[in-house]
Amino acid sequence: MVMARVDKLGTVCIVGPGLIGGSIGLGLKKKGLAELVIGVGRRSPSLTKALKLGAIDRATQDIEKGASDADIVILCTSVRLIPQMAAKAVPVMKRGAILTDVGSTKQHIVKCIQDIKRKDIPFIGGHPIAGSERRGIEAAKADLFEGRLCILTPAGRNAGALRTIKALWQGLGAKINILSPDEHDRTLAATSHLPLILAASLVNTVGAKRLPFTGPGFRDMTRIASSDPELWCDILLQNRRKVLDALKLFQKELNSIKLAIHEEKPARLSSQLMRAKRLRDAL
Amino acid sequence: MVMARVDKLGTVCIVGPGLIGGSIGLGLKKKGLAELVIGVGRRSPSLTKALKLGAIDRATQDIEKGASDADIVILCTSVRLIPQMAAKAVPVMKRGAILTDVGSTKQHIVKCIQDIKRKDIPFIGGHPIAGSERRGIEAAKADLFEGRLCILTPAGRNAGALRTIKALWQGLGAKINILSPDEHDRTLAATSHLPLILAASLVNTVGAKRLPFTGPGFRDMTRIASSDPELWCDILLQNRRKVLDALKLFQKELNSIKLAIHEEKPARLSSQLMRAKRLRDAL
Repeated sequence: MVMARVDKLGTVCIVGPGLIGGSIGLGLKKKGLAELVIGVGRRSPSLTKALKLGAIDRATQDIEKGASDADIVILCTSVRLIPQMAAKAVPVMKRGAILTDVGSTKQHIVKCIQDIKRKDIPFIGGHPIAGSERRGIEAAKADLFEGRLCILTPAGRNAGALRTIKALWQGLGAKINILSPDEHDRTLAATSHLPLILAASLVNTVGAKRLPFTGPGFRDMTRIASSDPELWCDILLQNRRKVLDALKLFQKELNSIKLAIHEEKPARLSSQLMRAKRLRDAL
Repeated sequence: MVMARVDKLGTVCIVGPGLIGGSIGLGLKKKGLAELVIGVGRRSPSLTKALKLGAIDRATQDIEKGASDADIVILCTSVRLIPQMAAKAVPVMKRGAILTDVGSTKQHIVKCIQDIKRKDIPFIGGHPIAGSERRGIEAAKADLFEGRLCILTPAGRNAGALRTIKALWQGLGAKINILSPDEHDRTLAATSHLPLILAASLVNTVGAKRLPFTGPGFRDMTRIASSDPELWCDILLQNRRKVLDALKLFQKELNSIKLAIHEEKPARLSSQLMRAKRLRDAL
């Protein structure tokens, strides 16, 4: 099953072909980027669906079997399981094969994977900023990453491996940005983890009785509160310190608007809202 | 120009034919609900556009002229201007004509209008929960209220006037909910005014440097931060006390999630996120 790598990415093993993993598989297959896509999953019905949808060519529940054949192993499970999956995959991977992931946190994962200590397997951390409140292979689509950003956090120096993983994401239509794991986690705490906390807190504040009085703006704003609580719980706790830092900054901004309302200062209130409008309009 | 009212709403005067007022005009005309729609505006180019788009039949910059001919006057300006417009319109309105509005706050407006003291002009406060971060007649559309909620806050007892204004909104496809001005303002403080503050605070927290790292979820969540700061400044200050109450409740919810993260309590964190998910999924 070992194939010539030619211009293609060779054999790609997707561990966890759900929304993200499944979309990678669909994209790779649609664009003809991989020789073979192997899906590793815990649940047989999901694997069958992934096969049926054409997101993977072969399926196995045995990660060691899937990973040992691969040129690239992409860990697409929840962030909690990524270190465990890495611990199983790395020892059986081919010399020179590349390990990568799509986890929403990076520092903790990089640390865990460095502890596995197999120097001939480069790890290129990855995080595509695309997703949805939905889960599972049913929600996967080939163009999920088209025009989206994918942050890569290469650990150590391996230019060849970085080039390959960049080519993979660019092939799927994503734009690449390189950050350190620390920068990634600090940034995402503000841009992604904080918004989830705010959306959940807002929904809980409004409560069942008042929800019927919400409009389309509220719906857009709280969509992410429908995301899977277990996945988010893992993310928020893995990135705990930086999430708490982001919350602190947010509370400062919130208090400054609150004070302007409390003290009835229209000019100050208006300038805070204007600052937000200018930033948001530029997006 | 006085016309028989038949089954139609007669002559409707829209003061401020922008996003909301213009959409009312377009809807009334599309469904043939009014005999005549008069648009009152301060800026001539906007009135010309409203005429051209077919949102109004006649245009005037003179509110007294527009209001004196109307069976229904709908105030669609910013909440700050609604009391001033009412003060100009009410004295010239025909006996038995109805005054209504679309303002996002109700208690302050109702109080101001009650002070005008013309007992033969019933005021039915209105607030359609539809809108957008966009403004102006260019963004107006005939079906803006289709399937949306419109809250009515009738002041005093005038069953006939309430019936007419209900018919107007139902004709535009909206569902009606009756609340007292106090209930309206308390509810909207949580469902609409609080979200605007959170969206603005979130954008200000993330800042220009990190905005490029945001994804589609963030975009959805912060869309309302692009709304007009002056309009919102007026709304937040008119509903100041209830907005501060809503902020207090929100901060309690936020702190409870923050504490679960700080103390590393996955079960508690997860149950907070699950409560939000259940509420949001039911929407």
